[in-house]
Amino acid sequence: MNGVAAIIGLALLEYAVFTGLVGRARGTYNVPAPATSGDATFDRYFRVQQNSMEALIIFIPALLLFSIFVSNSIAIALGLIFLIGRIIYAAGYISAAEKRAPGALITFGVNVILISGSIIGPLLHHSHT
Amino acid sequence: MNGVAAIIGLALLEYAVFTGLVGRARGTYNVPAPATSGDATFDRYFRVQQNSMEALIIFIPALLLFSIFVSNSIAIALGLIFLIGRIIYAAGYISAAEKRAPGALITFGVNVILISGSIIGPLLHHSHT
Amino acid sequence: MNGVAAIIGLALLEYAVFTGLVGRARGTYNVPAPATSGDATFDRYFRVQQNSMEALIIFIPALLLFSIFVSNSIAIALGLIFLIGRIIYAAGYISAAEKRAPGALITFGVNVILISGSIIGPLLHHSHT
Repeated sequence: MNGVAAIIGLALLEYAVFTGLVGRARGTYNVPAPATSGDATFDRYFRVQQNSMEALIIFIPALLLFSIFVSNSIAIALGLIFLIGRIIYAAGYISAAEKRAPGALITFGVNVILISGSIIGPLLHHSHT
Repeated sequence: MNGVAAIIGLALLEYAVFTGLVGRARGTYNVPAPATSGDATFDRYFRVQQNSMEALIIFIPALLLFSIFVSNSIAIALGLIFLIGRIIYAAGYISAAEKRAPGALITFGVNVILISGSIIGPLLHHSHT
Repeated sequence: MNGVAAIIGLALLEYAVFTGLVGRARGTYNVPAPATSGDATFDRYFRVQQNSMEALIIFIPALLLFSIFVSNSIAIALGLIFLIGRIIYAAGYISAAEKRAPGALITFGVNVILISGSIIGPLLHHSHT
């Protein structure tokens, strides 16, 4: 559980950094709240944060369920791939919208595997805790 | 725990499908990233996904707490209603914005019950695990 | 666990209320779905809800991990600060966009502390359960 817990903590840290970058981009690109659009570069920063939230709502519960019902060590390995994939995604997307694809595929792929384990694992009653 | 876990996995699968539909709709209705609006049909696909995330942030923790502190079997029944309600919501909303109401009411109703149990259950110290 | 569970339930209730206020604001300020913008006051209601979701995706898992790996009683204290901070945030933001800062700082500060504990706690193997 400790490894999976630390990975969730690190995923939340990544996301908090992306949130901080959006706050800074509001000033740099002059997009005052409550607007969430208005400058092409700001929009990419905002979508990095939003898409990361859309990924985390899957990643966190599915990682926990996968580690409980399928395999803790594979969960940790997939978690590390997710953490790196999100950095690739953010760096790519911020430079250009077309460059978001590789990181998006990595993290969506990890999430699909985790979801599969979260459904199949409990149904087969393979609890590893 | 296994039944609740599988329902969470299925809810994440539903949400991942809605996310995939948004990706496809970007191409079909010509709304390139980072835009999240620009075509009325695309907007409805996008809101199905976004609203489902807004519902899942409540559903997942509240379902777990309800199953721990109130009743596991009622949690499973409410979870199944949520899963069906989200499909009704998505099918209705994608066809027309006015048709989103029935599914929205079902899933919001389930979430209100789950939240109530998540607050009252722990305060009454009724842990069923 | 019961105290932390009840705080999560209350945080979800707050968020459900913010969601209900957005629904009501759609009618009051004439912003029919699927639009999520179009009136300055509606936009602030909408951002209160969205920003609260962005905060909850961190708060819920990090609060649980902090309570397990660092301290349950400090987790409860931080959780209460978060609950109050979100009310300050919502009341401020709805009155004027500039007035969102104090509540935003309180809740972001709590989340940064919780994230730190979620990473450091598991790595130091300090499990308190």
